[in-house]
Amino acid sequence: MFTRIDHIGIAVENLDESIALYDRDFDLKLVHRETVEEQGVEAVLLDVGENHVELIAPLGPDTGVAKFLAKNGPGLHHVAYQVEDIEAEIARLTAAGIRMIDKEPRTGIRGSRVAFMHPKSTASVLTELTEPAKGAH
Amino acid sequence: MFTRIDHIGIAVENLDESIALYDRDFDLKLVHRETVEEQGVEAVLLDVGENHVELIAPLGPDTGVAKFLAKNGPGLHHVAYQVEDIEAEIARLTAAGIRMIDKEPRTGIRGSRVAFMHPKSTASVLTELTEPAKGAH
Repeated sequence: MFTRIDHIGIAVENLDESIALYDRDFDLKLVHRETVEEQGVEAVLLDVGENHVELIAPLGPDTGVAKFLAKNGPGLHHVAYQVEDIEAEIARLTAAGIRMIDKEPRTGIRGSRVAFMHPKSTASVLTELTEPAKGAH
Repeated sequence: MFTRIDHIGIAVENLDESIALYDRDFDLKLVHRETVEEQGVEAVLLDVGENHVELIAPLGPDTGVAKFLAKNGPGLHHVAYQVEDIEAEIARLTAAGIRMIDKEPRTGIRGSRVAFMHPKSTASVLTELTEPAKGAH
């Protein structure tokens, strides 16, 4: 079961300029900043109620997000749904015929456990499952 | 103040095929279906906790969503933040230098009042404000 939209992921060229838009102009609270080497990004989280905006900027030109930016320019990159038991969700979706990029959860931002579905299974929407770390929301 | 992510808008070629993915495979509850002539779309809403997924399919080839699909293919189209007082938010954002496509709210899906910001002001992310109709969430 997906309990809420955990976050939308937005690919940006310049993290600090984008933070100004979301933090200062939109008045969202910046709550976290982290380099996620495994995903090749520097990322921040901003709270919107119980949901988040995740701004992601590439660490280098060979990263997935750099390639996304080169092809599409900045913009909406992915959506993450929050789940309570990520292994159970991976099993349920796989049984439903969804192709998972991650057959096992891996570590995402702020200690979460995450798994991505393949966009070919999701009508071209890069879709993530997120199980937050205990104590996070 | 943005109180939550109201919905993510996903542009699709075929509404019924996409409903199968979100309703059957993702197990989200389909709660609304509507033709929004003003925006040139047929749209459905599915609940994800207190958030929604909005699937939108174009009514004809001259609509904005048809042009989006021709250029980008199906995928993430916009994000909508929920607000309690849309006129106050339009005024606040305009004062902050954000360019609004809609300087006054107009009617959106399920009786909501909505206003879009110009993507040139939002780092290429089509961003909507949504004030739900009374009784909706």
